[in-house]
Amino acid sequence: MKRIEGGVTAPKGFTATGIAAGIKKSGKDMAMLYSPAACRVAGTFTTNLVKAAPVKWDQCIVKGLPLEAGLAAVAGAAASGKAYNGAASEKAYDGAAAGGMNGSPDRTAHVVVVNSGVANACTGAEGFGYCRDTAATAAELFGIRENQVLVASTGVIGQQIPIDKICAGIETMKPLLSESTASGTLAAEAIMTTDTVKKEIAVEEEIGGKTVTIGGMCKGSGMIHPNMCTMLSFITTDASISQELLQKALSASVPDTYNMVSVDGDTSTNDTCLVLANGLAGNPEITEEGEDYQLFFEALNEVNTCLAKRMAADGEGATALFEVKIIGAESKEQAVTISKSVVTSSLVKAAIYGHDANWGRILCAMGYSGASFDPEAVDLYFESAAGKIKIIENGVSTGYSEEEATRILSESAVTAIADIKMGSAEATAWGCDLTYDYVKINADYRS
Amino acid sequence: MKRIEGGVTAPKGFTATGIAAGIKKSGKDMAMLYSPAACRVAGTFTTNLVKAAPVKWDQCIVKGLPLEAGLAAVAGAAASGKAYNGAASEKAYDGAAAGGMNGSPDRTAHVVVVNSGVANACTGAEGFGYCRDTAATAAELFGIRENQVLVASTGVIGQQIPIDKICAGIETMKPLLSESTASGTLAAEAIMTTDTVKKEIAVEEEIGGKTVTIGGMCKGSGMIHPNMCTMLSFITTDASISQELLQKALSASVPDTYNMVSVDGDTSTNDTCLVLANGLAGNPEITEEGEDYQLFFEALNEVNTCLAKRMAADGEGATALFEVKIIGAESKEQAVTISKSVVTSSLVKAAIYGHDANWGRILCAMGYSGASFDPEAVDLYFESAAGKIKIIENGVSTGYSEEEATRILSESAVTAIADIKMGSAEATAWGCDLTYDYVKINADYRS
Repeated sequence: MKRIEGGVTAPKGFTATGIAAGIKKSGKDMAMLYSPAACRVAGTFTTNLVKAAPVKWDQCIVKGLPLEAGLAAVAGAAASGKAYNGAASEKAYDGAAAGGMNGSPDRTAHVVVVNSGVANACTGAEGFGYCRDTAATAAELFGIRENQVLVASTGVIGQQIPIDKICAGIETMKPLLSESTASGTLAAEAIMTTDTVKKEIAVEEEIGGKTVTIGGMCKGSGMIHPNMCTMLSFITTDASISQELLQKALSASVPDTYNMVSVDGDTSTNDTCLVLANGLAGNPEITEEGEDYQLFFEALNEVNTCLAKRMAADGEGATALFEVKIIGAESKEQAVTISKSVVTSSLVKAAIYGHDANWGRILCAMGYSGASFDPEAVDLYFESAAGKIKIIENGVSTGYSEEEATRILSESAVTAIADIKMGSAEATAWGCDLTYDYVKINADYRS
Repeated sequence: MKRIEGGVTAPKGFTATGIAAGIKKSGKDMAMLYSPAACRVAGTFTTNLVKAAPVKWDQCIVKGLPLEAGLAAVAGAAASGKAYNGAASEKAYDGAAAGGMNGSPDRTAHVVVVNSGVANACTGAEGFGYCRDTAATAAELFGIRENQVLVASTGVIGQQIPIDKICAGIETMKPLLSESTASGTLAAEAIMTTDTVKKEIAVEEEIGGKTVTIGGMCKGSGMIHPNMCTMLSFITTDASISQELLQKALSASVPDTYNMVSVDGDTSTNDTCLVLANGLAGNPEITEEGEDYQLFFEALNEVNTCLAKRMAADGEGATALFEVKIIGAESKEQAVTISKSVVTSSLVKAAIYGHDANWGRILCAMGYSGASFDPEAVDLYFESAAGKIKIIENGVSTGYSEEEATRILSESAVTAIADIKMGSAEATAWGCDLTYDYVKINADYRS
């Protein structure tokens, strides 16, 4: 596997662009991805009960359902006035899928339209209608079907999107689409909200004698505590792979990558991760879990890991990437539970901001995680580019040098490693420090 | 029930004081409560797996166990080097209790010694030994047994306590003890850490023809997300009540009071709530759950509710008390889950600080709570001393006035009320806004 320059336009046959469509007060706010070749598509979405309209729209496309299923999911609940039954709604999807659409060759996409001004969440049937209007506009322009247009939004919750600006933006973007690296970067910039840096990556892997490329871009950087997926992440690849294995690879990668990130413990209504594969690399189609699948999975996982870490490092107001590694665990699940508890603790995050080796807060957050372990057996280390230091051994202080610890914690990426000495499972979670600027950004967000 | 002046010294026969013993860099840092009459005692403690030494000490006393059980809970786990088994440890307590100590008439206390400089958490067997030294010093001075001295600590985790200063402090405090209101206030001040205001309260109730008084004091104000109990709360009463019913009343009150408070989502290692009852009111002893028990419970619950709300309002860096009320729920449990999810959301808390009616964040936090409800059926209101406004109806904006909403959210106590229209259960959680000062306090805490 090799890192290469670029992002979503790195794989063959993908074009992109980003513009200022006037949805935000200033700056770029719309992006578009387009592959003339039809793409297989896989996706993971927020587990929040409150799902934005574009999430419902894209779920229909990824699951091969009629778009009416998404509308029914919105209107049915509201009209009935009864308890929303998430399980029943999922079943409605399943029923439609069993009815013949699932696995259909029609289940492909060409276009992704993104706006970063308005989330289109909590907008009812009207909001879902705007997804359809967005897709219809793009479908007509590109001569494709509505259900080949994926839609994503991020921004303020509860406002209706300015659909005229969105449709005008699509027309503006079409002639600007290009395969250049710079165009991919424009798209990565246009999906940013409170992000301070664009996040894109591309890797190459030799699969079946052909060079397969995977590119990606994502955005954070608040309301980030992905549960099944991240805020918005778009991955492109020219790999030839069946839809089933594409979804399988994505679903296998997400729990260890995006789902291990937390900026503020808030699981967004809009979390969406989409992978588009147009098959132009010419590798023999990956249809089973052999060596080719493994190579593809590892490349995809590398892209997701990298994007997830960059999202954590660019958390709202953050000055440092904070990595928490639990080792010596009895099970992966136990290590995940403990590492996420530490990485989401406001007190730990504030201590990291202060470069303060306040390890008691780390042990405290491990203790209330809900996982069982022996606090009196824990060893804890801090590590960064400036070195590594053992802070506690068997639950009590080693008498380490505070000066040395502060030096290590003053880097822009710091890691806490806790060995709980119960087994050989481990997990790593990523977050960031808690700063004045997080508060400033979020107290003033809408004004 | 009548509110009266004072705090822990309001009930008959309780004395208190608070001093600066030199444990903190400056300010009062030790408090003592003393009742010459023996007190029945009830307590609830942190559910954090990492429990401070004084928590283990007090658990032995409240449960009527030999103090060796607490030491074994510390040393056993460390010595064995095996997985800490919380359940087995609880069983060890139970076994000892069944062995004859439980319900013993010896299960009484006279003294509580508190220090607010060092938490004595993550301090191993040495830390537990300092609890014993503290108790031994007080026991000798007052001519009582070691296991009649309750110990509580709050402050920095992981440091050993300066036991000489603690013992000297006890000797200094003994002659200062008094029944005066001012002495109760000294104690309430001496248990503060980052708290900005002391928190004390007293109420009177007529029970069995006698005036029964309950007084209380507590402290927050960071690492506050009580789970079974609050950081530190001390309640005194002259009621005559059996130990069983005293514990029952406390255990029944805690879930709706302290456990509904969150400042930062961090469940402390030191959470302790103790109730001491010396029986001097002369009411017929409450030994069953009749009218007298109900009157006592309601008075105790009022004290706990009031202290819990003050703790939330004085959360680290807070400028406002933030109350979240979920109504129309199917069950109490559902209402609790949703209200706690909203009150702990960093994004919602930052919006409250900005006086911003960013209701999408509230609906989002309700959605990821894990409880099931219909987002498209929710009505949401904001309320404060400045008025009440309906913000969303059936999941979408009412087109309310932002100016009016901001006016309502600019008060020092604000309430969000969400009606989920599924039934008649409800719950109220208390928290505070998230401010620059929270970050400032916690980035610099140890320095």
